[in-house]
Amino acid sequence: MTPISHNIGILGAGQLGRMLAMAGYPLGQRFGFYGDAPDAPAARLGHLFAHDQVDTLDRLTAWADVITYESENTDLAQIQAIEAAGVPVYPGAASLYNSQHRGREKALFNELGIPTAPWRVVTSLAELRQAVADIGVPSILKTTTEGYDGKGQFRLNAISDVDVAWRAVGEREAILEGFVTFKRELSMVAVRGREGEMAFYPLVENHHHEGILRLTLAPAEGISPDVRQAAQRYVRDLMGRLNHVGVLTLELFETEKGLVANEMAPRVHNSGHWTMEGALTSQFENHIRAITGLPLGSTQPVTPWCAMINIIGDTGPVAEVLRLSGVHLHLYDKAPRAGRKLGHINVVARSRTERNKLLQALQGFVPDGLIGKIA
Amino acid sequence: MTPISHNIGILGAGQLGRMLAMAGYPLGQRFGFYGDAPDAPAARLGHLFAHDQVDTLDRLTAWADVITYESENTDLAQIQAIEAAGVPVYPGAASLYNSQHRGREKALFNELGIPTAPWRVVTSLAELRQAVADIGVPSILKTTTEGYDGKGQFRLNAISDVDVAWRAVGEREAILEGFVTFKRELSMVAVRGREGEMAFYPLVENHHHEGILRLTLAPAEGISPDVRQAAQRYVRDLMGRLNHVGVLTLELFETEKGLVANEMAPRVHNSGHWTMEGALTSQFENHIRAITGLPLGSTQPVTPWCAMINIIGDTGPVAEVLRLSGVHLHLYDKAPRAGRKLGHINVVARSRTERNKLLQALQGFVPDGLIGKIA
Repeated sequence: MTPISHNIGILGAGQLGRMLAMAGYPLGQRFGFYGDAPDAPAARLGHLFAHDQVDTLDRLTAWADVITYESENTDLAQIQAIEAAGVPVYPGAASLYNSQHRGREKALFNELGIPTAPWRVVTSLAELRQAVADIGVPSILKTTTEGYDGKGQFRLNAISDVDVAWRAVGEREAILEGFVTFKRELSMVAVRGREGEMAFYPLVENHHHEGILRLTLAPAEGISPDVRQAAQRYVRDLMGRLNHVGVLTLELFETEKGLVANEMAPRVHNSGHWTMEGALTSQFENHIRAITGLPLGSTQPVTPWCAMINIIGDTGPVAEVLRLSGVHLHLYDKAPRAGRKLGHINVVARSRTERNKLLQALQGFVPDGLIGKIA
Repeated sequence: MTPISHNIGILGAGQLGRMLAMAGYPLGQRFGFYGDAPDAPAARLGHLFAHDQVDTLDRLTAWADVITYESENTDLAQIQAIEAAGVPVYPGAASLYNSQHRGREKALFNELGIPTAPWRVVTSLAELRQAVADIGVPSILKTTTEGYDGKGQFRLNAISDVDVAWRAVGEREAILEGFVTFKRELSMVAVRGREGEMAFYPLVENHHHEGILRLTLAPAEGISPDVRQAAQRYVRDLMGRLNHVGVLTLELFETEKGLVANEMAPRVHNSGHWTMEGALTSQFENHIRAITGLPLGSTQPVTPWCAMINIIGDTGPVAEVLRLSGVHLHLYDKAPRAGRKLGHINVVARSRTERNKLLQALQGFVPDGLIGKIA
């Protein structure tokens, strides 16, 4: 072990854990995963602590110098148990607590002066009816917890949609959000170290289809200094308030009236995967640096013409991707399944023309017409 | 498993296996290593087949779709046994056989019209005496097999050094090579696919100290088209003759009279480590692509100002490296020991000035005065 080596425990063994480990090994770090599937994406890249065992979080905690997690749906009690055992967990409980509930998250945004759509947490059909009367339609009803990739969401187009919406989210605590008319969806990935130092990746432009991210253009074009500074201020204040350590991502809508925050994730994020080859330091490496107390790396893009395309459902003609120069394939070793993220393709081009040409060559990996809108 | 996935067995579990695996996982490949040390650099990055077992090469062979190896000192009988079992091994036996004996290697070079220093294989003191009389001094006596990083070598400065030289190499088969007066040391890393397609990285400039590579500048500056074409011709002919599949490296001296071949390695090479961030496709990824029958990737450098510094013996103030922008740390998770390769540092700069500034900041990692000669 070198002086900068740590045993890093990751709760979860999916693709984010896999990419964190691959970014951390070159820094001399070692990885163990708390997961139980021997075919999980990260399972071959370190020790699987929960495989064929019952409740082996203690063993992971005993082994690890520091622990992190893949998902905002991580059990808060686990984080608190690890902290109580004296092993640092980053991001800490405050980051997890506030980001795993859409109501708490929105309240925090507003408290910090970060604009959001109008919103209301509802716990009954009657409350939902009142909220729709106040906020209006179109609006979106979302479960307060555990939603991702558009799951657990229902769009109300008329006040009469109230009953079906309430059933659609499972008749449980939910949040009604006013519909935001936006020009485009943006996100900012940033990182904060143990001593409070911060670094911000550029704003990127995201394109979703059926609730799933399909394409990121990085950096986003046409961002004014005001918009960039506003986004950085929001993320800086969030990370500071939460005493966040590690990567944090804020999803934003760009509207006629400026930025509106959608949600945050206390982790590396799909919209930051372009940084693997597109930035001087990837989001994965910076997360590992942050949680191990190492200096943060530069978040500067290597060119202004990076992009990321998700491989969803099946891998398609993926060998053809390897024929393209300036394109990098990242597969997660997951079995094909409709709507499942199986990998992504990073594009690092030297000009807009070259980037667009590469995107056109890759258009079979995204829904019809998406590339045509851009390239 | 995706359509392009393979179970890849690697004979050896050192840093080359580690970096091959990290380059191959993103392509959906899976790795197993034939090695017996649970703390080997690659041990955490795949299954260790020989750990706590006796003779488990059969198990690796049964598991693997394709097998490769880390070292030219791999036992040829192992390769032949794997081939006999019907599992492809790349590079094949011809590449291994010819590169693990300096006499066979030099004979092959000369047969293909690749210039070398004058040389003679000797098996006795009397033969050595005659060879020194013919070739003269200064000259270098090397064991025909198993030497690396300057080990098993003795420089004769006078004819009277014959006795001590013969004892120094262990009184066994050796090769006497005439001393080459060179301007600088170069190398070329190249790759050949299963269908015979080839790709060549640019020539790079290498700086050794006490027989160990310490610094590579990539690409080498001031290479004329004639020199580049000569080097490519040598490597092309070698790979073609050997029906080589995978990466091959040729070390060369640049002299007043042109290039002189020193030695080849049938594998990824320390002088190609710069390609990890410095080329569009790393040597490791291209080796994996080649042996799995995938399309080769572009060997183009991302800037003309890349460099690689080896971390030898101890890791030093390695956290400071992380403060430099455009610098990438690669540690191998090995315990410190004098002369041992523990990791390397890649530099990707946008200008010569920036590269030299970064090299100066890193000069503590190389022997005194080496950076001063360049930057």
